[in-house]
Amino acid sequence: MMSDTISAPESAPADAAGLRRLLDGEHHEIRARVRERLADEDYAPVPGDIDRDEYRELVMKWMKQLADEGETAILFPEKYGGKGNLGGGISAFEMMGHSDLSLLVKCGVHFGLFGGAILHLGDEQQREEYLPRVISAELPGCFAMTEHGHGSDVQRLGTMATYHADSDEFVIHTPDDSARKDYIGNSAVHGKMAVVFAQLLVDGESHGVHALLVPLRDDEGNVLPGVRIEDDGQKLGLNGVDNGQIWFDEVRVPRTALLGRYGTVTEEGRYESEFENPNRRFFTTIGTLVQGRVSVAGAALSATKSALTIAIRYALHRRQFGVPGEEGDELLLIDYRAHQRRLFPLLAKTYALHFAQQELIGELDRIVGRGEGEDRDKRKLEAFAAGIKATSTWHATDTIQTCREACGGAGYMDENRFAALKADTDVFTTFEGDNTVLLQLVAKGLLTDYKERFGDLSRLELVRFVGEQAYETVVERTLARQLVTRLVDAVTPNGDEDDEGDIEDREYQLRLFEWREEHVMSAVARRLKRGIDDGHDQFDVFNDAQDHVLHAARTHVDAQILEAFNRAVEACEDESLRPLLEKLFNLYALSVIEAERGWFFEHGRMTGPRSKAVTRSINRLCTELRDQAELLVDAFGIPDTQLAPIATGGAG
Amino acid sequence: MMSDTISAPESAPADAAGLRRLLDGEHHEIRARVRERLADEDYAPVPGDIDRDEYRELVMKWMKQLADEGETAILFPEKYGGKGNLGGGISAFEMMGHSDLSLLVKCGVHFGLFGGAILHLGDEQQREEYLPRVISAELPGCFAMTEHGHGSDVQRLGTMATYHADSDEFVIHTPDDSARKDYIGNSAVHGKMAVVFAQLLVDGESHGVHALLVPLRDDEGNVLPGVRIEDDGQKLGLNGVDNGQIWFDEVRVPRTALLGRYGTVTEEGRYESEFENPNRRFFTTIGTLVQGRVSVAGAALSATKSALTIAIRYALHRRQFGVPGEEGDELLLIDYRAHQRRLFPLLAKTYALHFAQQELIGELDRIVGRGEGEDRDKRKLEAFAAGIKATSTWHATDTIQTCREACGGAGYMDENRFAALKADTDVFTTFEGDNTVLLQLVAKGLLTDYKERFGDLSRLELVRFVGEQAYETVVERTLARQLVTRLVDAVTPNGDEDDEGDIEDREYQLRLFEWREEHVMSAVARRLKRGIDDGHDQFDVFNDAQDHVLHAARTHVDAQILEAFNRAVEACEDESLRPLLEKLFNLYALSVIEAERGWFFEHGRMTGPRSKAVTRSINRLCTELRDQAELLVDAFGIPDTQLAPIATGGAG
Repeated sequence: MMSDTISAPESAPADAAGLRRLLDGEHHEIRARVRERLADEDYAPVPGDIDRDEYRELVMKWMKQLADEGETAILFPEKYGGKGNLGGGISAFEMMGHSDLSLLVKCGVHFGLFGGAILHLGDEQQREEYLPRVISAELPGCFAMTEHGHGSDVQRLGTMATYHADSDEFVIHTPDDSARKDYIGNSAVHGKMAVVFAQLLVDGESHGVHALLVPLRDDEGNVLPGVRIEDDGQKLGLNGVDNGQIWFDEVRVPRTALLGRYGTVTEEGRYESEFENPNRRFFTTIGTLVQGRVSVAGAALSATKSALTIAIRYALHRRQFGVPGEEGDELLLIDYRAHQRRLFPLLAKTYALHFAQQELIGELDRIVGRGEGEDRDKRKLEAFAAGIKATSTWHATDTIQTCREACGGAGYMDENRFAALKADTDVFTTFEGDNTVLLQLVAKGLLTDYKERFGDLSRLELVRFVGEQAYETVVERTLARQLVTRLVDAVTPNGDEDDEGDIEDREYQLRLFEWREEHVMSAVARRLKRGIDDGHDQFDVFNDAQDHVLHAARTHVDAQILEAFNRAVEACEDESLRPLLEKLFNLYALSVIEAERGWFFEHGRMTGPRSKAVTRSINRLCTELRDQAELLVDAFGIPDTQLAPIATGGAG
Repeated sequence: MMSDTISAPESAPADAAGLRRLLDGEHHEIRARVRERLADEDYAPVPGDIDRDEYRELVMKWMKQLADEGETAILFPEKYGGKGNLGGGISAFEMMGHSDLSLLVKCGVHFGLFGGAILHLGDEQQREEYLPRVISAELPGCFAMTEHGHGSDVQRLGTMATYHADSDEFVIHTPDDSARKDYIGNSAVHGKMAVVFAQLLVDGESHGVHALLVPLRDDEGNVLPGVRIEDDGQKLGLNGVDNGQIWFDEVRVPRTALLGRYGTVTEEGRYESEFENPNRRFFTTIGTLVQGRVSVAGAALSATKSALTIAIRYALHRRQFGVPGEEGDELLLIDYRAHQRRLFPLLAKTYALHFAQQELIGELDRIVGRGEGEDRDKRKLEAFAAGIKATSTWHATDTIQTCREACGGAGYMDENRFAALKADTDVFTTFEGDNTVLLQLVAKGLLTDYKERFGDLSRLELVRFVGEQAYETVVERTLARQLVTRLVDAVTPNGDEDDEGDIEDREYQLRLFEWREEHVMSAVARRLKRGIDDGHDQFDVFNDAQDHVLHAARTHVDAQILEAFNRAVEACEDESLRPLLEKLFNLYALSVIEAERGWFFEHGRMTGPRSKAVTRSINRLCTELRDQAELLVDAFGIPDTQLAPIATGGAG
């Protein structure tokens, strides 16, 4: 199909293109190019019953094709044959999330994880040797980290890499079945080499987890001696990716197979590393996963946008029931309040996450791509990526499900895309870091900040800090604040003119989110400290508070997203678009407040009348956005070829 | 595999069998027999990549096999060759929900919908003629109600059934593409006859929607002249069922093809019906859908139990992370608070729904199976079925998703069952009545009750009734109740000794649910009345309040479920089981209260300290239930052959 089938036909409202340009941001040219590429029928979605072997070969062909066209070089520095535009590359990857997600994941594994590991963990020689063949997809690679017995706890991997001084080699070995590499993408059929994570043992001394390059197959595709690979076979989704399990039986690789940026073995057989602390080195190593998390967050968002585009366009032409007691046409689905309430808050949150994601890409580009920023910035980036990845992928699962249901029986037909969108994105919530584990990582970073804050304070200041906390608690217990607010509310029942501020005011919403974050965070910190001060077992204290800790992480991520969205609104100078963004911001903020109103009540920041006012505002905003819904999804600019018959008027 | 592979081995705690017996209830023998049948390897789950044609034939073979063994006769009265045990039949169907769901849906379409329509809408002669061949599965049938342009709004179907007096025949015709029958199960390959819903036209007069028997294929399986069937092809799930679209081009059927229980055409060509009001007749007709809804609710619950069994057993042997700073084993997943909080409230809700479902089956058996009860009972049964169907199917979607995530990468492998459980149950939320539409049906019934209540009251009583409502509103506005409760709370910060009652007290919880239902219901009624009294357009008033109406329906269903669960607890005389049921009841009730605490705050029935006490109680109950989790899923008695390797220790 020609590129004139890209959505947003000329008849679309004048500002669909403008809004798209705003959403596309810095890398708009790259996004436009990917969009055009995906509009090609060659990349059209495959049917759900495609033969698995055929599907895997098709995806491999697509990947090679993109590499041949030079599209995939963008992620890598110019000196290795790349184009040195990490931000652009991640944006391109995000756009690919509108097409086949097996292709996206296969590319993510090969270019992002395998290539990324060589780039970030390898030394100069290793990069020069391997990256050109990664970029051209001539050397399809795997990222062999996860083990059967060790999903998220990578520090305890069982695979061994033992240095043998006599032959100057490492011996890679899988000691037992729980140490087999599991769910490794690109390994069952195509992978020729893997970055293998293993416990490094040199001269009898353990140095913790390191990454090594281990060949898997020869040029003819035969699995090499000592390597055993089993096909994971059929999966819930992503069946165009060949996942497998790998065992190593005393496989020998040269000393130079160790990716050497953070630790090497010298010609003399001595282990060397700039990090004295193996823990620290380990976290630097897995910190390189950040790019994968940013990529998955983007892909999840794109899949979400596809689902919303299909469901909203369907609702714009699908009729259901008539006005009771009247003859004539049935009503459009989109005109029902319940339908608006199901879809529009999800659309608003998608916009919010879009802007947060763009900031995240910017930070990744700055810190990882251009090497700017300090250690502290890296830590913040990791936490930011972890939080957005968890939030975006859960949001994708929720939204795609809701959109499927909003399309009824039509949504259940394979051709209408939800089957693939649901199945393929499902694993996003638990791979590249399980979301629950990632949120704990976010919380841990914040608690560390707290510790630092305590550390920096003089004794006097510490007292004052604790005093403030105690004061808040007292306020809460005596309910003074609640009573005052409630009495004020009783006088102004709409709850929008009291000293708490207008619920639709952006500044007020930002302050409320920030206050919630601070409050939950300090409560968790105090709870953990109290438990430990009281002599309880550290793990028990943490486990007892685990839900509280996860909640704290969520409040932080919510605040980050709102702030990013706010900056996007502030930066918008187009007076035709700004009011629309403001409405979406408002709807997003109020939806979170409504969903979390139980907590706000608990902590004296919500009253009955205010709460009802929030619900009324959301309803009003939904009504107001009804006529903008088409524009808002057209602005995503998803090629029609990647959408569903029910979204493009083909069938319906 | 032999029946000794059925779960709950002898090593299980002594009361797993006892609890199972309690759950199995009245139809325990039938349930035990289906369990044993499904333990046979012959019914083992099919791989996700099975060829679609092969899958459809396998499912047809299974269905025929069950019929040959006499298992499916149970739903039908003895005089037509059945066994006359509707309750037992629905219970058997529920148990089949642990096996292949395509088999379940195919059986549901053929025996339940096609056979059920003949049984409930046909006259004596039609039943005698067709039911024996339905029971034996010799005459595979379809239920052709849904049309492309009319999903939920069945009253506006476009298919025409026009009586031609000259030939004494009906002409069945699809006037346009929006009237094509859509997503019709069993039609693409196997169906030989369909119950077709069409607008009946006799002598130029329209009599509304009626059902007629229309042959689709001859004995060799060739589609008959005038009938066009297109295969729906690949779907998101349930690919063992052959769904299709059907068009009729002036297809002639005899006068006696009209299912004649509620309306017939006499030999003289005159339309006759016991109902003068076509609307009333129409609702009686679609009221027969109630059995399908009860069945789907049960199937959804069974799939939910399968998912919980897999996830909880996995958590009981899967280890993740160690105690920080300590050597030694990683911890079991089930010992993490966050994991308990994810799974146990869903388990408790599954128990709650189980007991509600058993009451629903009992009511169906009594009213539909044994023909007892009045019109009012039928209406209540329809609303009950609609509410439980919506709640159970959404619960299934939520729970299966959560369980998949709780099993990480392993949960994504096809062999571990979540792929099929997710995909196959997905459509449950929108078929046999879209859940959102069903909840409106529930609310409509309740509002009708309200109207009747108003109608029955004398003028004086009416004033008092309105007075009470007004009083509640005033109380709310002045916040008197809130202030009092809050001040009491301030004195007793645990919030469990004030005049509001102990949050863990069953009676208190029941009253709270009831109060919420009454309050929301009367608020909606007043809102609708006010809107109409103020002269607003009736549809606008309703649409404006649609979310409020849906909320009202949910509060009603929540209260119904809690009451059913309470009756089950009260009826339990086994002192070893009762405390366990009480804990589950408590966890379910408190989980709803926690999730809805925003609303309770809004209406002065919740305070900060009480709310925090609810959260603490939930955490404590989760801890207490940890050691019972295995027993609680063993009691479902799902054959190991129907579960996953990660649930049975095969792989993991």
